[in-house]
Amino acid sequence: MEKDVVLDEERIMDVATTLFGERGYAATSVRDIARVLDISIATIYYYFKNKEDLLFSIIKSSGNDLLLLLHESMEQFSDPVERLRHMIAGQVCMAYQKKNWVKVYVEEQGNLSKKYKDIIYRQHREIYDTYIKQLQELKKLKLVRVEQLPIAAFAVFGMVNWCYRWFKEDRGVPLEEVAQILVDISFHGILPPGRALSSGVKQSRQPAKK
Amino acid sequence: MEKDVVLDEERIMDVATTLFGERGYAATSVRDIARVLDISIATIYYYFKNKEDLLFSIIKSSGNDLLLLLHESMEQFSDPVERLRHMIAGQVCMAYQKKNWVKVYVEEQGNLSKKYKDIIYRQHREIYDTYIKQLQELKKLKLVRVEQLPIAAFAVFGMVNWCYRWFKEDRGVPLEEVAQILVDISFHGILPPGRALSSGVKQSRQPAKK
Repeated sequence: MEKDVVLDEERIMDVATTLFGERGYAATSVRDIARVLDISIATIYYYFKNKEDLLFSIIKSSGNDLLLLLHESMEQFSDPVERLRHMIAGQVCMAYQKKNWVKVYVEEQGNLSKKYKDIIYRQHREIYDTYIKQLQELKKLKLVRVEQLPIAAFAVFGMVNWCYRWFKEDRGVPLEEVAQILVDISFHGILPPGRALSSGVKQSRQPAKK
Repeated sequence: MEKDVVLDEERIMDVATTLFGERGYAATSVRDIARVLDISIATIYYYFKNKEDLLFSIIKSSGNDLLLLLHESMEQFSDPVERLRHMIAGQVCMAYQKKNWVKVYVEEQGNLSKKYKDIIYRQHREIYDTYIKQLQELKKLKLVRVEQLPIAAFAVFGMVNWCYRWFKEDRGVPLEEVAQILVDISFHGILPPGRALSSGVKQSRQPAKK
């Protein structure tokens, strides 16, 4: 019985995520979700207070999955570079396998009211802290060259959180290779290793041709 | 007279972008926009067919600004690395200076109907092609180490398009320095130059501790 309850809740969240992802949260009604599931609206309201509560559950669940993945990488790998590699690669794979979940997570958080947002922000903080902790450990070992660790963390987040927008299964590059390439770009950038470090944005500015 | 028309249109788009950015597109009505501007709804409908047309104009305008910026970098700098540096740094500065425009651009495109989306997708393609062209030029000069140029382009897009989410004026790091750091991360990654290239995501996977 308990198992059925979990399954129903998950099925509702799964279908809602697909619809929110494809049509947008605002354009999807609880009735639409019930129709696809072939259940009554009342069944949805049995599990979720309202549409916002459903959105909140989806976003919280995505965040929890990510935290789980990050903590698993932390436990599984003792080498701190390997650990970071698997945190990043894992997030890339998640963006691929759960495209609509990540899309809803990234694009629909603005629809949550303050009470819910506060909980999600605490979760953001936990994800951020996990990355920062990892970067700090690398820094102690002189394995990070960026001074501003928050900017390094946000650069990586941006790279991996953007994936759901361009991943297409038919692009021809296997997922593991994509993950590998994105880890490499995070670690080593897009220019060849020998290339000198940048000369500064400001000083290199030239007058526009007129 | 012509000048006033342009000003009104821009003022409407400006206020609409702020409201869409702060409250979300779905939660903002044309009435809300008119109220903030202290003009009649009819004035808005004189310039824009409906709310969607207004959203489309905002998104198209953001895309055009970005294309303008990219083309300026292309013309201004003859060195291809400097050119790419200024493309990336310019996009970072844009995300800072036009936070709500970028937010609406990233998060609200799903609200456009197919007719509008098709136009925006063509614009995406133009932005993408500009970056790819630039990366191809670098590749010819052996100044890119990533084989998959599309993935390199999307990695950079992700990094810079994520900025609007974490930029805070009070964070203490001046904008030009943030832009500089993000260019450096794009070019050289977060690990030190001497660090060996990655050993592969797949082969380095270890069994989970049990």
